[in-house]
Amino acid sequence: MTDKSKQDILLELQQVLEQRKGAEASESYVAGLYSEGLNKILEKIGEEATETILAAKDGDKQALIGETADLWFHTMVMLADQGLSVTDIIDELARRFGLSGLDEKASRTS
Amino acid sequence: MTDKSKQDILLELQQVLEQRKGAEASESYVAGLYSEGLNKILEKIGEEATETILAAKDGDKQALIGETADLWFHTMVMLADQGLSVTDIIDELARRFGLSGLDEKASRTS
Amino acid sequence: MTDKSKQDILLELQQVLEQRKGAEASESYVAGLYSEGLNKILEKIGEEATETILAAKDGDKQALIGETADLWFHTMVMLADQGLSVTDIIDELARRFGLSGLDEKASRTS
Amino acid sequence: MTDKSKQDILLELQQVLEQRKGAEASESYVAGLYSEGLNKILEKIGEEATETILAAKDGDKQALIGETADLWFHTMVMLADQGLSVTDIIDELARRFGLSGLDEKASRTS
Repeated sequence: MTDKSKQDILLELQQVLEQRKGAEASESYVAGLYSEGLNKILEKIGEEATETILAAKDGDKQALIGETADLWFHTMVMLADQGLSVTDIIDELARRFGLSGLDEKASRTS
Repeated sequence: MTDKSKQDILLELQQVLEQRKGAEASESYVAGLYSEGLNKILEKIGEEATETILAAKDGDKQALIGETADLWFHTMVMLADQGLSVTDIIDELARRFGLSGLDEKASRTS
Repeated sequence: MTDKSKQDILLELQQVLEQRKGAEASESYVAGLYSEGLNKILEKIGEEATETILAAKDGDKQALIGETADLWFHTMVMLADQGLSVTDIIDELARRFGLSGLDEKASRTS
Repeated sequence: MTDKSKQDILLELQQVLEQRKGAEASESYVAGLYSEGLNKILEKIGEEATETILAAKDGDKQALIGETADLWFHTMVMLADQGLSVTDIIDELARRFGLSGLDEKASRTS
């Protein structure tokens, strides 16, 4: 698996999060979060941010990967709940840093 | 710009963050963060998590995109500072959710 | 100074915070916070909670006292801003833990 | 109950938290927290700070009192766990704000 193909995983995950909007709360953790509402999702973001900070202070790299993944995951649930997506975040980062995803891609395909 | 090309931006940003490790603290915001140390980077994660939560409660979608981008950005600075990278997080998410970046990519190109 | 006399300080501080509501934002840090609004006050609570956590992890007792004092202080600014006070919090703690501030005081003075 | 006597409650609560250090983890919520260790206590501080922020944004005064009481309570558990106490925090606030708990008390008792 190349680094590039790994990136597609965030878009796959986003599709899964969108699909869960139609699921029963009792059958899916994510559907349960949507059902409990925005405050519950934001509580999870606060929790996972704290756990990320603690794992970093402990110098526990495996825990840090796990907690950061939790933080990003719940951020993506929040974005989906609010009608936004991971691509909104990536576009914003590209704009700020003048990153050339488009130009580079264009030059590769031309 | 297709969704797929957008994704490469996180890897480009990661390369930028790695390159900043050799920069003067006075010449780059990121180099300044590395120089101030892990606590300063983690303080920023706490701040941006709070601002993300406030933007979500305000229902301000543009602010929510900006604050979430800030949160992800500072998380990536932390990962780089700790010798980790965004691909560690994406691999972890793929593992948890059984996402098939490789297989899907393979089936598309074949 | 006995422990008992020390306690009156929270009520004194609360009075100061109430008085600052009439001050010019440019002349008082607290008046400036009220003027910037609830989000700014809540951002400070998020920041100080993070800094408290970091000081505790560092085992730096002097920093931990300072950051916890910051956290309590900004919590009291939030309470004042919202028309509440430190006595609301203390009453709630007394109710939960069945603490007998009144009875104990009465038995001591009788 | 006067405001002054209410303040004694924080010192009573502190004594309770000290006594719980000798209790079985299975018999007391606080003893359980001590037993789980500093990270667990700090996770609770992160959680309660987030819930305080959410209650404030919702304008729900009763919830705001409850969540702020939770935040202060877990801060006091952290202080006790680290060999500190609520009087350390109150002394620090008095020092910063030039509050006259001592002088006022002295003038009253003289």
